[in-house]
Amino acid sequence: MAAAPAASSAPPPPPLRALLLPLALLLVAAAISPAPTAARAPSLPPRLIRPQRPQQQAVAADGGGGGGNSTAAKPFTAHYFAQELDHFTFTPNASMLFSQKYLLNDTFWRRPGGGKGAGGADAGPLFVYTGNEGDIEWFATNTGFMFDIAPEFRALLVFIEHRFYGESKPFGNDSYDSPQTLGYLTSTQALADFAILIRSLKKNLSAEAAPVVVFGGSYGGMLASWFRLKYPHVAIGALASSAPILQFDYITPWSSFYDAVSQDFKSESLNCFSVIKATWDVLDERGSNDKGLLELSKLFRSCKTVKYAYSIRNWLWTAFTYTAMVDYPTPANFLENLPAYPVKEMCKIIDGFPEDADILEKAFAAASLYYNYTGDQTCNQIEDGDDPHGLDGWQWQACTEMIMPMTISNESMFPPSTFSYDERSDECFQSWGVRPRPHWITTEYGGYKIDKVLKRFGSNIIFSNGMRDPWSRGGVLKNISSSIIALVTEKGAHHLDLRSAAKGDPDWVLEQRRQEVEIIQGWIDQYHQDLAETSP
Amino acid sequence: MAAAPAASSAPPPPPLRALLLPLALLLVAAAISPAPTAARAPSLPPRLIRPQRPQQQAVAADGGGGGGNSTAAKPFTAHYFAQELDHFTFTPNASMLFSQKYLLNDTFWRRPGGGKGAGGADAGPLFVYTGNEGDIEWFATNTGFMFDIAPEFRALLVFIEHRFYGESKPFGNDSYDSPQTLGYLTSTQALADFAILIRSLKKNLSAEAAPVVVFGGSYGGMLASWFRLKYPHVAIGALASSAPILQFDYITPWSSFYDAVSQDFKSESLNCFSVIKATWDVLDERGSNDKGLLELSKLFRSCKTVKYAYSIRNWLWTAFTYTAMVDYPTPANFLENLPAYPVKEMCKIIDGFPEDADILEKAFAAASLYYNYTGDQTCNQIEDGDDPHGLDGWQWQACTEMIMPMTISNESMFPPSTFSYDERSDECFQSWGVRPRPHWITTEYGGYKIDKVLKRFGSNIIFSNGMRDPWSRGGVLKNISSSIIALVTEKGAHHLDLRSAAKGDPDWVLEQRRQEVEIIQGWIDQYHQDLAETSP
Repeated sequence: MAAAPAASSAPPPPPLRALLLPLALLLVAAAISPAPTAARAPSLPPRLIRPQRPQQQAVAADGGGGGGNSTAAKPFTAHYFAQELDHFTFTPNASMLFSQKYLLNDTFWRRPGGGKGAGGADAGPLFVYTGNEGDIEWFATNTGFMFDIAPEFRALLVFIEHRFYGESKPFGNDSYDSPQTLGYLTSTQALADFAILIRSLKKNLSAEAAPVVVFGGSYGGMLASWFRLKYPHVAIGALASSAPILQFDYITPWSSFYDAVSQDFKSESLNCFSVIKATWDVLDERGSNDKGLLELSKLFRSCKTVKYAYSIRNWLWTAFTYTAMVDYPTPANFLENLPAYPVKEMCKIIDGFPEDADILEKAFAAASLYYNYTGDQTCNQIEDGDDPHGLDGWQWQACTEMIMPMTISNESMFPPSTFSYDERSDECFQSWGVRPRPHWITTEYGGYKIDKVLKRFGSNIIFSNGMRDPWSRGGVLKNISSSIIALVTEKGAHHLDLRSAAKGDPDWVLEQRRQEVEIIQGWIDQYHQDLAETSP
Repeated sequence: MAAAPAASSAPPPPPLRALLLPLALLLVAAAISPAPTAARAPSLPPRLIRPQRPQQQAVAADGGGGGGNSTAAKPFTAHYFAQELDHFTFTPNASMLFSQKYLLNDTFWRRPGGGKGAGGADAGPLFVYTGNEGDIEWFATNTGFMFDIAPEFRALLVFIEHRFYGESKPFGNDSYDSPQTLGYLTSTQALADFAILIRSLKKNLSAEAAPVVVFGGSYGGMLASWFRLKYPHVAIGALASSAPILQFDYITPWSSFYDAVSQDFKSESLNCFSVIKATWDVLDERGSNDKGLLELSKLFRSCKTVKYAYSIRNWLWTAFTYTAMVDYPTPANFLENLPAYPVKEMCKIIDGFPEDADILEKAFAAASLYYNYTGDQTCNQIEDGDDPHGLDGWQWQACTEMIMPMTISNESMFPPSTFSYDERSDECFQSWGVRPRPHWITTEYGGYKIDKVLKRFGSNIIFSNGMRDPWSRGGVLKNISSSIIALVTEKGAHHLDLRSAAKGDPDWVLEQRRQEVEIIQGWIDQYHQDLAETSP
């Protein structure tokens, strides 16, 4: 085990309230973090997604090539829906309204004719993205697949922002103030928001009989699959991409996520894996005093002298972890601007050093691929991570419902660590004044023996995964029934299938997307066929 | 339209707070009701169930013969579970705990052996009653079917009390004070309560792998079917008896309930129907002044002089409506002590009068069958209805989620009336300080085109109905798929199938129960078979 930074080098712990941010961002920044009391891994899980710094936001549906054109007209229009705060009580606060943002693209939509298709049965389908933990424009921009297939389906595209993210903050700037406000940020409320908004939208469009298919990636994919399971009367099917719905409780081995990250690197080069594995102890040792921290700050080109070696650890950790997640086969700009197969590229950098070069120089150079591929950063914001897409609410969710236990095994390239429900609970209480309900997700949505349960119940869900994505280990990787399907690619990464078709897309992702289109077409055809039949 | 009672005969309207009870009990009592402003039917729906006065509570599972023996040992033990107040937010109130009552009978249960059936797969099933709007002992007592079939299934019987009823009041005696407390009384919270309690119970019993089947009648039947739809990972199937899940929005014609009540009477005797139909105008006319009210009080043997003719109207209305609901083929004591086929008996009474007898005497005599079959009432509590099973929370539910529009057509035996969402909303705001969400139930649980939706989604639900029960019109009356089944009897009444086997039970109800047992056995067998198979 690496030694903890000497307590004497740390300022006194900040007051409780100040703990909020650092703990929330534990993995990716430790700006004003109190001295870690033990050298264990960050106990809060990585975000399902995590951009590091403001991007030039691609506003046209991303071409997958890291392009995007900020001067192009946006391919959607923004709208706002008056949504009730709490769907599951009738307490006085419950009926408070807030503005929920959603985006529409009706360029290709076959509108209802009104004639024999009265009720909108002749209309094109609604393809609805169930927004996740960030501003909705960012997800719309990174879900080019829906734009790509809209013309052939003559579909209306709808992207609904998740409550408490982007512009959909029920209490405006005060939304993150306390459990009194944040308490309404839950997945169940979000699903009900989607149901209410979709139903209202269809009514306003006179398209009540038009079929709805929901799409989502990552947490949004979890929501899409849960939405189909809980609201089958609203959505006829769901494409849930990279949705780790089994990453809860004791369903998936707790070490699987970081084992998978490690495996991604090991598969490229054993030396690369070993260098990274050896980094952490060296880093802790050299960062154990102020002189060492000054040297490290220079080595890592930190914009400011770092206060904790722990911050650099997080900075590196983030780079390796998120690069594994977005190990796409083409250049892309989702979290950061990256080349094709960035894990391979990182390992090439490490392997390109002389064997006896400084191990931290190797690690720094590798991480720089993630943070500075374009070369436009003159220094690194190691202790001042920012949050351009407003994803911080995820840290609240990770302290309430989204308890995904993660440990680090001896076989991984990260320092070993354990997970404790009690510790998580205490940390969350300290940070947010709330205690998690660690078994709620599996009570509300299931997960245990999912193959047995859904074999006899439910239909029309695609769980797509790419095995390069460490989140895939918590996903559904085998077919459950003839209509609850797993589409798995060996080389795919985090919801690659939802990205726009790009130059150089390998055949296997084209085939995955082709199957998705075919299956979705089948759902829609069956829906229309059922509708046409007279009831028995 | 009948004339409204003269406003001058009424005292000034009571203050808003005092309106609560009368409006809540509008249909069945109008003790301190303000003068009705129009002679329209009570706008709040009849309770799904409604006992009129304290019964000698049958504590042994009711034998169906109106028996029950208060000295017999109860066939269940009472337990209490620490339940969280709000499962769908993390606001500071949410984690408040309350005691939720549940009853157990393990007399026949095959306990888990622990050997090759580790995880409890070798244990007998759990048969769980999803409690409805009253104290749970009353429902347990009137659901003898579960006790009857427990031995052959070697089942554990569990009856869970619905939050805000019986002893399961989160805020004790203050629970009904205001929307601040009552706001947590919703069907979604109740379903989550059931899921959490069942999961915890199974864990404590080391029977995690034991199958669970849920049972419920009336609103409890709605909950059972919704529970299977929302928590398929907790319950493998549901028997939903007399569950009017389609009595919402515009799904079922609004006049169907009272049309069905009327049809029950008409089918026995056209004269009976016509007498009742003619009653209302005569009653209003003769009760339009104080002298008339005094005479009516005598005629109806009221314990106190009635203040409004409207009260007598409600008293009669209740008798006819609830007698139709419980038109059982054997003597029973669910709402009141009644003979077999009580509608037939009521009509015999009416038809036995000379044609020119006082029409109100006929109506009184008929209603007395309902209120005083045993002949032990010396006078009638016409304006002081009581509530022995604590069902009043239903009036809150009817003002929030459970908006079941009902109108009365010209063809019925009741005075015609309309329904207005706006009026209901205003009444509810006046009475409870809350406004309904009239379309929420169909958004949350579906209902529209249920045959198309569930044909391709879900499994293992029995919807049982008897067509003598006016609630049957809002139920599922046709098979939806091979495992979502409608079991309908022409002559059955409100969840007759859930009652104990009784002497004189006709073949058709024996057959209905036999089919239920057979289907449930099929679910359990399939569950064990699936469990034994290795995952693909």
